Amino acid sequence: MMKKITLAVAALAVTGAAFAQQALKPEDAIKYRQSGYAYMSWSMSKIKANLEGTYDKEQVILAANTIAAIANSGMGALYVPGSEKNVKGVKTRVKPEFFTKQQEVGKLALAFNQEANELARVAATGDAAAVKAQFGKVGGTCKACHDDFRIKD
Amino acid sequence: MMKKITLAVAALAVTGAAFAQQALKPEDAIKYRQSGYAYMSWSMSKIKANLEGTYDKEQVILAANTIAAIANSGMGALYVPGSEKNVKGVKTRVKPEFFTKQQEVGKLALAFNQEANELARVAATGDAAAVKAQFGKVGGTCKACHDDFRIKD
Repeated sequence: MMKKITLAVAALAVTGAAFAQQALKPEDAIKYRQSGYAYMSWSMSKIKANLEGTYDKEQVILAANTIAAIANSGMGALYVPGSEKNVKGVKTRVKPEFFTKQQEVGKLALAFNQEANELARVAATGDAAAVKAQFGKVGGTCKACHDDFRIKD
Repeated sequence: MMKKITLAVAALAVTGAAFAQQALKPEDAIKYRQSGYAYMSWSMSKIKANLEGTYDKEQVILAANTIAAIANSGMGALYVPGSEKNVKGVKTRVKPEFFTKQQEVGKLALAFNQEANELARVAATGDAAAVKAQFGKVGGTCKACHDDFRIKD
């Protein structure tokens, strides 16, 4: 597990550097990061539905693996300069502080990565009660970042 | 590998049933499936950049794992009735035939799943030449579906 997380954090740094060189357009970066969050959101909603209804172990595993894979995929690279505000008709709800408070953002990102990877691990056991508890922890890390760095609706 | 693919196909059926019950809104289904494709597209572009520039094994692994996880996540559930056309301001480029030619779509989806899982397997070896070949195969399965079932720009 630590290896995975270390890789993810390393990749975040690495991809950040790589993408600065390739000059990903800010409007594309916003769309890509929103797509990652949206797909994780759908995956979370599927796990929630399983916890509230009939529990399908395989569906929960696939959803949890998807969340972990996206969490590990280096989304930090999608916060390129110029993507801190709406650009070319593409809206973002990120607060500008997200780009300056690197230590705080790093902590939140690491917590999210850790909990997402742990959710994938727990899902593989098929223990619905443990998944429920861990699902709550993942949701907590989502909320923590939204509270601090996402503009309210 | 076969187990993974079988699971993915099974999950596609299972989640399809589960979500019909939950009545996922067509406009949300379109947004979620587009987010999945967009995030895979970003992941593909990262692998391409690695193949054309400096090859970073870990970045390619994370991107390939993301594509495989999304491919395995049961996107079939996102093609709910009512999502075959633009709805509530949300546009889709899917052709209506996608919803009726189930056998053809199933074949394309299975081919994509197989090649995406194989890409994740090959990426783990760090063999850039093999990744390049397999990357081409994945791209081919994307294109095959786009050619038949996506409305041209």
